[in-house]
Amino acid sequence: MRNFILKNENAIYFSSGYSCDNAIFLCVDGKKFFLTDARYTTEAKERVDKDVAVIDAGRGLIKEARLILRKLKPKTLYFDPNDFSLSAYEALTKGVCVNFKKAIYLSFKEREIKDEKEIEILRKASQIGAKCFDEFAKFVRENGEGMSEKELHFNAELIFKQKNELGLSFSPIVAINENAAKAHALPTDKRLKRGDLLLLDAGVRYQNYCSDRTRTSCFDENFNFLKEQKFQDKKQQEVYEIVLKAQKAAIDVIKPGIRAKDIDLAAREVIASFGYEKQFIHSTGHGVGIDIHELPMINSKNETIIKEGMIFSVEPGIYLPGEFGVRIEDVVVVGKNGAEIL
Amino acid sequence: MRNFILKNENAIYFSSGYSCDNAIFLCVDGKKFFLTDARYTTEAKERVDKDVAVIDAGRGLIKEARLILRKLKPKTLYFDPNDFSLSAYEALTKGVCVNFKKAIYLSFKEREIKDEKEIEILRKASQIGAKCFDEFAKFVRENGEGMSEKELHFNAELIFKQKNELGLSFSPIVAINENAAKAHALPTDKRLKRGDLLLLDAGVRYQNYCSDRTRTSCFDENFNFLKEQKFQDKKQQEVYEIVLKAQKAAIDVIKPGIRAKDIDLAAREVIASFGYEKQFIHSTGHGVGIDIHELPMINSKNETIIKEGMIFSVEPGIYLPGEFGVRIEDVVVVGKNGAEIL
Repeated sequence: MRNFILKNENAIYFSSGYSCDNAIFLCVDGKKFFLTDARYTTEAKERVDKDVAVIDAGRGLIKEARLILRKLKPKTLYFDPNDFSLSAYEALTKGVCVNFKKAIYLSFKEREIKDEKEIEILRKASQIGAKCFDEFAKFVRENGEGMSEKELHFNAELIFKQKNELGLSFSPIVAINENAAKAHALPTDKRLKRGDLLLLDAGVRYQNYCSDRTRTSCFDENFNFLKEQKFQDKKQQEVYEIVLKAQKAAIDVIKPGIRAKDIDLAAREVIASFGYEKQFIHSTGHGVGIDIHELPMINSKNETIIKEGMIFSVEPGIYLPGEFGVRIEDVVVVGKNGAEIL
Repeated sequence: MRNFILKNENAIYFSSGYSCDNAIFLCVDGKKFFLTDARYTTEAKERVDKDVAVIDAGRGLIKEARLILRKLKPKTLYFDPNDFSLSAYEALTKGVCVNFKKAIYLSFKEREIKDEKEIEILRKASQIGAKCFDEFAKFVRENGEGMSEKELHFNAELIFKQKNELGLSFSPIVAINENAAKAHALPTDKRLKRGDLLLLDAGVRYQNYCSDRTRTSCFDENFNFLKEQKFQDKKQQEVYEIVLKAQKAAIDVIKPGIRAKDIDLAAREVIASFGYEKQFIHSTGHGVGIDIHELPMINSKNETIIKEGMIFSVEPGIYLPGEFGVRIEDVVVVGKNGAEIL
């Protein structure tokens, strides 16, 4: 096993079974250490994996890590240069005779292919997330008319949190008409009226793993988050159908052996064929796991070979500033013969 | 004005009036640039200060920042080494003829003394936070018996969010008896019963500024979050009185001209005089602003001279693992003649 050091909260959770916002994880010659401060040591001792020693780093995390390194004298130590600030890196390496080796995405790469247990947790997370979509749809159908984006957002958080143990994947995006043209809109005082387009991007966190889903719908008496939608506005319907087609095309090409960029290309080609390529302003997807954004990145440049057990979002969108935006997103797991929507 | 570059979300908010989770802020020869990606540019253009140019950094934030630096050729550029990962720092500085100067806590230092407008916002945030404490006390009095920490936590979030525009300062800490001995406990399935000690540490975010407060109370028919508390357990009452005395002592010494460490010492001496110095496992306080933890740090080593307009928490605690914990926290603003509790 490689020797390595982690500072990212989610990376540490993956390697130790517990984490908090002030911790360092060290693995040297198979020995594992969870360094934190007195606020977290009691909790940490109860929750880390059995082979991990919890260290109360009263003198500071970096200082304590340095002391351990001086004692155990590993030859090399891998670290993710994205994971350490320049300050932390300089403090850690000062006067320590260890060959610090950069390993970009050290933890993300370990987590890129999910094992069976993780797939089950992510499947369950997606199921809970989908139920929350249904519950929120019912809420909006019955109470949504005249509500502001802020009120809708508050109620979305409420509904998505009731169903999970550990919070949200991220703060939901709830956007009406032209606000949906901002891919990451903040909720405003804009109020929902019949015939409006409503976009919801939301996810729950279940056993520390994230769900992620987006639907774009028309607000009327039959309001729902199904993929079949009837918009009152003709252009909205047109754009919606293109995005749906793009998503389907992307999901259809997924199988072990293709490259991540091939998936992006499949979605992008559909959208380009209708002349909206400049309005598809982000990549097609991202890995989903303990982090809401993980590997693989599904963009136009990524040559990564898709493998069984990878889990990522497929979420093409078309954004027309001042008019409206449409995005449709599902998380898929790669199986032997293709993608399965979670 | 110094030339500087920021990458931290809250630091950027302070300097530009808007922020998001993927941005860089550059100030060179008085010219200000907000770099972000297409997901946020529409929102950014609506919300940044008028003298800030929003740049769609399609090629990546760091690449775009490097292009601007090559064009404007500043001699020196200040940056916070805590704010840049080793990766980001190396990418930013590669092939750019600029003298990059480290300035630890660059933004935090600018924000250490609050102006009148900020003090008013923080005062209002604290008032809203205090109201939420009252509302949550009522809720617990009427519904708390038999509820688990998880349920209490969920309802605390609910109550603290209803009252604010932008979310919570942090996820509330709700802990019963021995769980309160963990300074940062996660909520468990432990259920509240009459006579229990209940600790609540919570804050709201109002106009992007944080409130922060902790109360420790006895759950009975008169349950409240007042500072005067009657615990059924004698030792709990004893420890509570010590912490309250320590907080008062710390607040009483605050005035412009003393050092941060003098405030910490005032609290620590009271606790030590009763033999609990080893159970006071954290520092006495921290600055509060856009970040929940800012400067000045109120700990035993900080020589910073306290000045008018500083705003920080005063929160001594005593933690007895396996038994219980007590913490009492208020945020104060330093005035000409002393501290005022917000």
